[in-house]
Amino acid sequence: MKGKSLKIIKIGGNVINNPEKLNAFLKLFAEINGAKLLVHGGGREATAVANALGVETIMFDGRRVTDGATLDVVTMVYAGLINKRIVSALQGLGCDALGMTGADGKAIVASRRPVVRIDYGYVGDVGEGGVNVRLFKALIDGGLTPVVSAITYDGCGGLLNTNADSVATALAKGLSKEYDVSLTFCFEKPGVMSDVEDDTSVIKEITRNNFDVLITDGRVSGGMLPKLENALEAIDFGVKSVIITNYQSIGISGSGTTIRR
Amino acid sequence: MKGKSLKIIKIGGNVINNPEKLNAFLKLFAEINGAKLLVHGGGREATAVANALGVETIMFDGRRVTDGATLDVVTMVYAGLINKRIVSALQGLGCDALGMTGADGKAIVASRRPVVRIDYGYVGDVGEGGVNVRLFKALIDGGLTPVVSAITYDGCGGLLNTNADSVATALAKGLSKEYDVSLTFCFEKPGVMSDVEDDTSVIKEITRNNFDVLITDGRVSGGMLPKLENALEAIDFGVKSVIITNYQSIGISGSGTTIRR
Repeated sequence: MKGKSLKIIKIGGNVINNPEKLNAFLKLFAEINGAKLLVHGGGREATAVANALGVETIMFDGRRVTDGATLDVVTMVYAGLINKRIVSALQGLGCDALGMTGADGKAIVASRRPVVRIDYGYVGDVGEGGVNVRLFKALIDGGLTPVVSAITYDGCGGLLNTNADSVATALAKGLSKEYDVSLTFCFEKPGVMSDVEDDTSVIKEITRNNFDVLITDGRVSGGMLPKLENALEAIDFGVKSVIITNYQSIGISGSGTTIRR
Repeated sequence: MKGKSLKIIKIGGNVINNPEKLNAFLKLFAEINGAKLLVHGGGREATAVANALGVETIMFDGRRVTDGATLDVVTMVYAGLINKRIVSALQGLGCDALGMTGADGKAIVASRRPVVRIDYGYVGDVGEGGVNVRLFKALIDGGLTPVVSAITYDGCGGLLNTNADSVATALAKGLSKEYDVSLTFCFEKPGVMSDVEDDTSVIKEITRNNFDVLITDGRVSGGMLPKLENALEAIDFGVKSVIITNYQSIGISGSGTTIRR
């Protein structure tokens, strides 16, 4: 127990790209008491702007291959359009938001992903020590709510496109040195479901103890597995809880799926 | 004398749109000792992106008429692309830059320009009290260098496109309550020239005392007049000096034109 709690919320592209859903989410986010931090992705809007500018979009394993022109597009859309749209809306809701990328105040330093099967270009991964804990602590303790777009700093004058889930997880791990961190991933589903067709099949709690059983009996599988592995790793690292829930359920205690020690 | 000096530098579109000139400028800016703050415009790149996205550019009296689609474009280009390009380059040069718009931390609140001859749309002017002095002081005294794009906050959830010269002047006035502020406008000319064709005709010093004479004998005229009026007004307000100089001369004492009491 560090005594001071911090809620880190990650909101994904499908909610961000829908003004009605985004406003509903931001209203709930603004109402959360205490220290908080928002991480956002981008998604479809970047693809639309890239298309209009004649920049080809290449995806591989769900990740955007990022050449120089694509980096310009995601920087415009994530750090400019979407980040400032969220910051100004939150200010209008009485939440003192401050937008950031990883380059601002050297907040999040990432390493360019090594070329293995494919060269992702200007894509970065955040390692241990990549989060500027001192800066985030100064901003948060000063009453500000950082709103972080998933553009990181390469440590030598350049930017890197980074997965927003990874940024949120890196922030949760890094800031768990100073705060009791709960990390919430918001999306359109009600949580981790044992039957993807059945909204009432939400698994309430996942720990290291029941995780293997959930895999063995097939209740968690597919794309959810790496997400849950990452969540359990964050818990091992010192993050207090990871919650996977619907964007309309943040702040409602006991909603969605909680991953804990 | 407040004892603590702050250098506010404004860099314009023509330098920003040229990578070589921008890098030369940023190198000099990074080398400036002590507390500093950078304000940047945008200019041509926004027009190019607007064209590509099919958003019509309408200028009136040198100002961009800003409808909703244009506001999205300038937010992308100024607050995203250009701001983060500058911030990451400065970080690479060892300057701990933090990018901002007026919405971030409610840093700069502007009022939408009233419709007189023309409706400029989402265009704002910063009045007295529009600068969040407490926030800038906390960031600057914490060792950060704010890099401010000329997008301001409307006070109720929205953004406003604002002239970068006006933003720089408003910041200089507001922060002169806490610092001995010198405000420098950097451009491609060597300073205010009595003969626009002759680079050696730079007027070294302008004060309220010699301003009328300079106008009467025709040594300052045209577009420079309102700029100098604004500069003298800033001096009356408490800004220590306003310097108009070449972007390659910042930090060189005695270069360009100095406006002082």
